[in-house]
Amino acid sequence: MTTYKAINLVARPTAGPVGPDLFEVVQKNMPEVSDGKFLVKQSHMSLDPAMFGWMSPDTESYIPPVALGDVMRSSGIGEIVESNHADYKVGDRVMGMMGWQEYFLSDGAGLNKVTAPLPAEAILSVFALPGLTATQGLYSIGKPKEGETIVVSGAAGSVGSIVGQLAKADGLTVIGIVGSDEKADWIVNELGFDGAVNYKTDDLATKLAELTPKGIDVYFENTGGPIQHHVFDRMNAHGRIAVCGMIADYPKETPDLAPNWIPIIKKRLIIQGFTMPDHFGEVPALLAKLTPYVMQGKIKHRAHVLDGLESAMTGLNLFFTGQNKGKLIVKL
Amino acid sequence: MTTYKAINLVARPTAGPVGPDLFEVVQKNMPEVSDGKFLVKQSHMSLDPAMFGWMSPDTESYIPPVALGDVMRSSGIGEIVESNHADYKVGDRVMGMMGWQEYFLSDGAGLNKVTAPLPAEAILSVFALPGLTATQGLYSIGKPKEGETIVVSGAAGSVGSIVGQLAKADGLTVIGIVGSDEKADWIVNELGFDGAVNYKTDDLATKLAELTPKGIDVYFENTGGPIQHHVFDRMNAHGRIAVCGMIADYPKETPDLAPNWIPIIKKRLIIQGFTMPDHFGEVPALLAKLTPYVMQGKIKHRAHVLDGLESAMTGLNLFFTGQNKGKLIVKL
Repeated sequence: MTTYKAINLVARPTAGPVGPDLFEVVQKNMPEVSDGKFLVKQSHMSLDPAMFGWMSPDTESYIPPVALGDVMRSSGIGEIVESNHADYKVGDRVMGMMGWQEYFLSDGAGLNKVTAPLPAEAILSVFALPGLTATQGLYSIGKPKEGETIVVSGAAGSVGSIVGQLAKADGLTVIGIVGSDEKADWIVNELGFDGAVNYKTDDLATKLAELTPKGIDVYFENTGGPIQHHVFDRMNAHGRIAVCGMIADYPKETPDLAPNWIPIIKKRLIIQGFTMPDHFGEVPALLAKLTPYVMQGKIKHRAHVLDGLESAMTGLNLFFTGQNKGKLIVKL
Repeated sequence: MTTYKAINLVARPTAGPVGPDLFEVVQKNMPEVSDGKFLVKQSHMSLDPAMFGWMSPDTESYIPPVALGDVMRSSGIGEIVESNHADYKVGDRVMGMMGWQEYFLSDGAGLNKVTAPLPAEAILSVFALPGLTATQGLYSIGKPKEGETIVVSGAAGSVGSIVGQLAKADGLTVIGIVGSDEKADWIVNELGFDGAVNYKTDDLATKLAELTPKGIDVYFENTGGPIQHHVFDRMNAHGRIAVCGMIADYPKETPDLAPNWIPIIKKRLIIQGFTMPDHFGEVPALLAKLTPYVMQGKIKHRAHVLDGLESAMTGLNLFFTGQNKGKLIVKL
């Protein structure tokens, strides 16, 4: 094989669905693996809502946007197929930001070896960005206490499902917001959430009041959308809101406005946003916090696997339609 | 004298101006000063925006609303005119929540002696609620750092004017939002702010951009209103927003919506509300923090003094019209 496939970002998304017109599939020449380098054959790539931020031209975001003409940014997992690096040998599995491409040449910077004997889907679903994000936001901002009530939006998503299970293991009442009865069933009957609101069919105010009779102490926000106002209305004094994602608003030309700030004073709320790149230095501590829950069988996951590199281009839209069931992963 | 005047709250405010119809002026019998008690003749009462919260029926607020038929709640300063209490003697000055009335019978609970040889107006303007609130919110939430830029809304108000002067003394660039050219002139030329935006006449986006070329690191929010969106748009990464007051929205039936939360994620902002009753235990520490600035002449104030108990009933509306010039005080 002398060439491999990659997908470059060639246009910026506007409001509405993203599609192949933003991207260009290219053939790249197989690189030479010089001294101190190794070549990874990527087997699985992660699709994440954060990608909409990476594609947008917003220079104020937490990491620079992907430059037009560059390979689209993504994290993934793969196996080393050729090595001239003393610390990495053929057959080692590695994980990191390798982008939308079949092969990745590296000197090791930014990649982590994967030694756990787990399938790639499990690694990307729990120990990669979703689990780290859930752990960071829940504990550093949400500060959950036994007996409290937490509401998680995007509760069947890769981050939300882990947040809810961690909180449940810690003794909180856990309510999830989802977009289908199938997801509601999954988070309640499989993951052990105490209740679910289907934001598409339930009467939001009534259902939420019924499920949170003692009010809401922690809100883990993954979506935005109208439900935000109803949750906000039920926050208890000294409530904490971790703002992790606003997927309902990313595709809108003019994002919806948020609740008025008067209750922030009356209830002394804290609303705090976070993104993982600020906390990459804390990854060992986050993994140390997360791993015992996983080892005790308290964190279940499910992966929604798309087939083939090109499926990434349209697969991203599943975040908007909510049709993904579990962590979106592209199998190469 | 066998009776004295008091003002009871008899109705709850709705949207729009408050007025004498919410209140009833009553004559009360002078109380007997029994053992362990003393009688204060109140000389000055403070009017504060927080009073709108105290009058509203909202049971979720940080302190219970004033019950209908009770004396309207307020802080004030006065002199002891009769005492059967070992620790308080006739002539002592005391400060505390004495309500809208000429006399106040106390056993000392909740009152503090005032020993500083300062006029009542200076005490109520700097060392009472305004100074404590400014110090608490600025340092515990705003976390100002030398070289940063802070924007203060309600900048000519009792809290905002102190926040800005503290931040200026700490080496920040300080921009104030005000509602008149007279106030703009006062905060810049008397208090030393670096700039002022007149939200009634300036082009908000243009003026704010001109005055905050390096963006905004700290926002001390006293007002709400359209300016909130413009300030929010210019927040820097890791910015802090202390939400202290929303005076522009208190009189509205449906308060205005707030900026969408996407930038809270992208910029990892913290938005936090606070009220002083949570922090009364920290008053000694807050006074210890504030006093050196005052002693070094870095905190100027001005009081807007209304005359006579009854003037309180309509005086509150000056917060909405913005016609008060400095700390609102009623002289009895």
